Amino acid sequence: MIGVGVVGYGYWGPNLVRNLCDIPDARLRWVCDLQVERLAGVRSRYPLVQLTSDFGELLNDPQVDAIVIATPVATHFSLAMQALRAGKHVFVEKPIAASVREAERLVEEADRRGLTLAVDHTFIHTGAVRKMRELIDTSLGQPYYYDSVRINLGLFQHDVNVIWDLAVHDLAIMDYLLPERPVAVSATGMGHIQGEPENIAYITLHFASRLIAHVHVNWLAPVKVRRTLLGGSEKMIVYDDLEPSEKIKLYDKGITLAGPAAPRGEKIRQMMLGYRTGDMTAPRLDTTEALSRELKEFVACIDSATPPIADGQAGLRVVRVLEAATRSLSRQGAMVELKQESVPA
Amino acid sequence: MIGVGVVGYGYWGPNLVRNLCDIPDARLRWVCDLQVERLAGVRSRYPLVQLTSDFGELLNDPQVDAIVIATPVATHFSLAMQALRAGKHVFVEKPIAASVREAERLVEEADRRGLTLAVDHTFIHTGAVRKMRELIDTSLGQPYYYDSVRINLGLFQHDVNVIWDLAVHDLAIMDYLLPERPVAVSATGMGHIQGEPENIAYITLHFASRLIAHVHVNWLAPVKVRRTLLGGSEKMIVYDDLEPSEKIKLYDKGITLAGPAAPRGEKIRQMMLGYRTGDMTAPRLDTTEALSRELKEFVACIDSATPPIADGQAGLRVVRVLEAATRSLSRQGAMVELKQESVPA
Amino acid sequence: MIGVGVVGYGYWGPNLVRNLCDIPDARLRWVCDLQVERLAGVRSRYPLVQLTSDFGELLNDPQVDAIVIATPVATHFSLAMQALRAGKHVFVEKPIAASVREAERLVEEADRRGLTLAVDHTFIHTGAVRKMRELIDTSLGQPYYYDSVRINLGLFQHDVNVIWDLAVHDLAIMDYLLPERPVAVSATGMGHIQGEPENIAYITLHFASRLIAHVHVNWLAPVKVRRTLLGGSEKMIVYDDLEPSEKIKLYDKGITLAGPAAPRGEKIRQMMLGYRTGDMTAPRLDTTEALSRELKEFVACIDSATPPIADGQAGLRVVRVLEAATRSLSRQGAMVELKQESVPA
Amino acid sequence: MIGVGVVGYGYWGPNLVRNLCDIPDARLRWVCDLQVERLAGVRSRYPLVQLTSDFGELLNDPQVDAIVIATPVATHFSLAMQALRAGKHVFVEKPIAASVREAERLVEEADRRGLTLAVDHTFIHTGAVRKMRELIDTSLGQPYYYDSVRINLGLFQHDVNVIWDLAVHDLAIMDYLLPERPVAVSATGMGHIQGEPENIAYITLHFASRLIAHVHVNWLAPVKVRRTLLGGSEKMIVYDDLEPSEKIKLYDKGITLAGPAAPRGEKIRQMMLGYRTGDMTAPRLDTTEALSRELKEFVACIDSATPPIADGQAGLRVVRVLEAATRSLSRQGAMVELKQESVPA
Repeated sequence: MIGVGVVGYGYWGPNLVRNLCDIPDARLRWVCDLQVERLAGVRSRYPLVQLTSDFGELLNDPQVDAIVIATPVATHFSLAMQALRAGKHVFVEKPIAASVREAERLVEEADRRGLTLAVDHTFIHTGAVRKMRELIDTSLGQPYYYDSVRINLGLFQHDVNVIWDLAVHDLAIMDYLLPERPVAVSATGMGHIQGEPENIAYITLHFASRLIAHVHVNWLAPVKVRRTLLGGSEKMIVYDDLEPSEKIKLYDKGITLAGPAAPRGEKIRQMMLGYRTGDMTAPRLDTTEALSRELKEFVACIDSATPPIADGQAGLRVVRVLEAATRSLSRQGAMVELKQESVPA
Repeated sequence: MIGVGVVGYGYWGPNLVRNLCDIPDARLRWVCDLQVERLAGVRSRYPLVQLTSDFGELLNDPQVDAIVIATPVATHFSLAMQALRAGKHVFVEKPIAASVREAERLVEEADRRGLTLAVDHTFIHTGAVRKMRELIDTSLGQPYYYDSVRINLGLFQHDVNVIWDLAVHDLAIMDYLLPERPVAVSATGMGHIQGEPENIAYITLHFASRLIAHVHVNWLAPVKVRRTLLGGSEKMIVYDDLEPSEKIKLYDKGITLAGPAAPRGEKIRQMMLGYRTGDMTAPRLDTTEALSRELKEFVACIDSATPPIADGQAGLRVVRVLEAATRSLSRQGAMVELKQESVPA
Repeated sequence: MIGVGVVGYGYWGPNLVRNLCDIPDARLRWVCDLQVERLAGVRSRYPLVQLTSDFGELLNDPQVDAIVIATPVATHFSLAMQALRAGKHVFVEKPIAASVREAERLVEEADRRGLTLAVDHTFIHTGAVRKMRELIDTSLGQPYYYDSVRINLGLFQHDVNVIWDLAVHDLAIMDYLLPERPVAVSATGMGHIQGEPENIAYITLHFASRLIAHVHVNWLAPVKVRRTLLGGSEKMIVYDDLEPSEKIKLYDKGITLAGPAAPRGEKIRQMMLGYRTGDMTAPRLDTTEALSRELKEFVACIDSATPPIADGQAGLRVVRVLEAATRSLSRQGAMVELKQESVPA
Repeated sequence: MIGVGVVGYGYWGPNLVRNLCDIPDARLRWVCDLQVERLAGVRSRYPLVQLTSDFGELLNDPQVDAIVIATPVATHFSLAMQALRAGKHVFVEKPIAASVREAERLVEEADRRGLTLAVDHTFIHTGAVRKMRELIDTSLGQPYYYDSVRINLGLFQHDVNVIWDLAVHDLAIMDYLLPERPVAVSATGMGHIQGEPENIAYITLHFASRLIAHVHVNWLAPVKVRRTLLGGSEKMIVYDDLEPSEKIKLYDKGITLAGPAAPRGEKIRQMMLGYRTGDMTAPRLDTTEALSRELKEFVACIDSATPPIADGQAGLRVVRVLEAATRSLSRQGAMVELKQESVPA
């Protein structure tokens, strides 16, 4: 039985608490929030859980094995570091920290202490994204591109730009899905509201191969879109997260190259390009709630001392891209290289 | 009565011929194509039109006042220049020429000779784009962004990349719609088929104001998309060209800034950001065929010696962006500045 | 302050309880369900509410002014009648009862005792349906037709056919929206699963005027559809309840009749029929939760002794059509007349 | 080589002429229309075809083997009968005639003379409908229902109601697709424009088995819909003819019956009803133009003296349902039985 304390009971905290309460191998012991009025909602629903606005109580409770952090990004590092130093396993909301330096220190600390450090990359636990991973492994052929549009009206964040708020999802999904790591990033964007961070951004990820990835994020769009295209040499996928069912469509479409071997000295472009169109299939998806799977995995990883799918290194890789993208944004799209080596254990 | 000769009877030529035959003030005299078998189709449908594979016949016919050019891009300059030098008015398929240098020389030649030079930016003559122009002038407020996705499977061009083939439409639309000219461009992209040009590209246009524009073009997408978002400070537009009707949707949505004037020294971000949502309206659109309007305008401009909406300067501005985008593409997204001054008359 | 007891805590009961707890003028005192394990959920969330499996406790509690009934249809009459006889106001799930005779007796009993009897016709309290009512009153012209498709896969009911389960919603909506009452009904349908009631049905409502209404309900459809067309002489409406926003679209479309007055003896059909197409508008809708509005209205009606919009008479009218439709269904679509006079008070 | 004459060059005639000109084994010899100005369009495009407004010229030309009739319905019988009596094979637009009696006489005449009589049930030659036929034969299980919506704004016909204009397509498709013939029909509807026939109608077809079919047709709808649901015991199909691709979607969905064999005397309803959801597949469809396939089949059937898929008997069966539906419509939905025996040869 893993004793758990949750810090932060704002937008996402209630989902974490609800799911934690349904895990047989976990016992939720504490919920902590600085805004005590939020805690009233916990009391009525979960009368056995202890409530506090003092994070120290969680750190000092020997029955707390793990801390789940759902506070604003700026506080992730401090809270997670305190928890690790108190010997607690840690599960942090995305992004894992507000800078590469912070994320590296968390990874180092967790490694040194042999503690489980997980980041809440929720989407990679959805049936849709796991099905895409399976299709990439079995059907897609060589990945050509990942193109995502993640736009809607609001909610503006005041302290981070739209990349840190929305593109983080795509970076986490790509970190899980793609067989390669990006080697550089270019980003352009704009802030339209005086005094607010960029509310629209376009990010290109460059890879060593011919793979290319692009993410469009926007807080000021008239319609909500959550749509990803994933092209491969054999098949192509459209992933529309707003579809009630049929979120994943697999298209048997592509280019064919035909014709006799080009004579010596001729360019390959003399070959005949053809277009192939076959069936489209929308595979049935596992509809288990992603957060439930994810928290169960976290608890199981603590038990077995194995790393979760989205471990501290994954969180760090995503923050590296976020930081580089923000740097490119300030340089009008100039390419910024990514050093993607892991932190030595 | 304006005598017209058409050169090029491939994909687009038949549409030009059909529409030219319906203009009361024009008389189609010649259709010219190097592939003589194509001309058979003209003979049966338009028995009074003269057919040839010798462009010189059009140049030498004094009853030909204007030449319409619908041949591959690489030939635009040579054919248009010959026509101008023979004293003919010219209407050229988009893009007007294969380079800025070529386009400039055509503009100079037409100016010098007082001839009408028009480029076939078809979309700006559609009911949808004209309605957007009207909405920008009356309702949108300050333009914030133009975001376009123009993707499908095929047809690959072998001699120009996907920017020259597809993004040219968006550049022409923006040249017509937006109150500002771009000052720089960044582009990233990739070619996935060995020996072929880039088949996917992402282009950002930078402006002197907070306006930003972005175009995603792709020849290797599993689905066809033609969708543009146009955000403004007061209203936002979604333009979906694949909708059978309701191509334009005007959203009364946006951000509101509220609250007492910020105390001195305080940042504006302390003001309250709010979200405004009102009705959506899909205005009725004029469904006149764009090409018909456009060719009538060309003929009328010859008669009145006034420049068409899409004149040589417009064609030149679009080619400037195409050339700069291709340069940025080869530099992994590095920003390339645009000099947008007109060619002196 | 109105004291309330809820009986039935299955599918819909939790929504009733949640909304009742948010009404300042109501106090939820009891939740009753025969399946005691269901009550555990109430205890943890609403610790001050009394729980029982004995309905008599609610009837005998003098602090209970009103009873909310969310049990299977077959039990509505018995529970509601007991409540009325105990002097309680009553709010019953749709349909109000399992037969016209039962519904009539409930209406009579409530009238005799001067008690408020309300039926849970939830949809008429949604922003979408209320907007339609407004548009019918102001813009639609003469109503021509109401056509609704309400289909999905499952959930089969075992004791009532698909008409009682799904068409009841449309009948309630029409009872609220349309300026006329139906005078007859025809229905066809089929049961495909041995031993189960009809799972697909088509119902036509006939009116004294040229208005016609039709409802297609189906428990065995591969896709979920909730779409209503409402045609009028001036405008037409599409109401798609599955649209996240823009549930209501108002089309300025129709037929125009033109031409000089037909000469004597000529039929009007010699007049020119034309088609008119204008803008489409999706008006902003009130997004208040319907059930919240409805329960507040119920409480206010008790206080002011005024009838609710969906009173017992409305519930009775809907049951009359349900019963007649089922009779027509068993007669292969033969028209069954409706006597729609109210029960005398 | 089959010599062909076409009579009627209005809405559909040009499509027939264009496709006939592309069939190697046919030679188009005549186009006949009473409105001579229509023939001008034929002359310029097909200079070798003879033009006339005298139908007798086609009948008297010994080089004309077959007559294609694309005139208003009221004239089908007279023209087709004249053609048969002149020894010509006949291809008639749908519906084959304006009454059962007329259709029977055409079938008898063609049979007696050994001539090919075909009716233009175009949809059954589309890739979509042929794929549905294949899926019914291989995957659907026992057919449960056919439900079609075929609605739009205009074009009103003045001499036939909306059933004869639009439902005829669904009746022809069902005649081809379904393994059974309907035994009775019920129909309701309404005419909203004074002096015009019914513009909205709902038709139920009854079968000897549990199969049920329904068609909703409407000339006064704000949106265009062409959508058919086909439910079976194993799979279900959605056929949306307005989808640019993916017109057919096959859903692996349905009901499962589980549980131990019911004890003697127990009803089967005690068994557990379950819901099964698997993949959805949109199969690739043949995109050959239906009319081209159909006319080639007609010509081949003349050559081989074999009946076409849509022969006179098929045309007669469809007219039987049209006539019965119109009768039911005038009786407010009363069921009208269908006698579907073939005309004896």
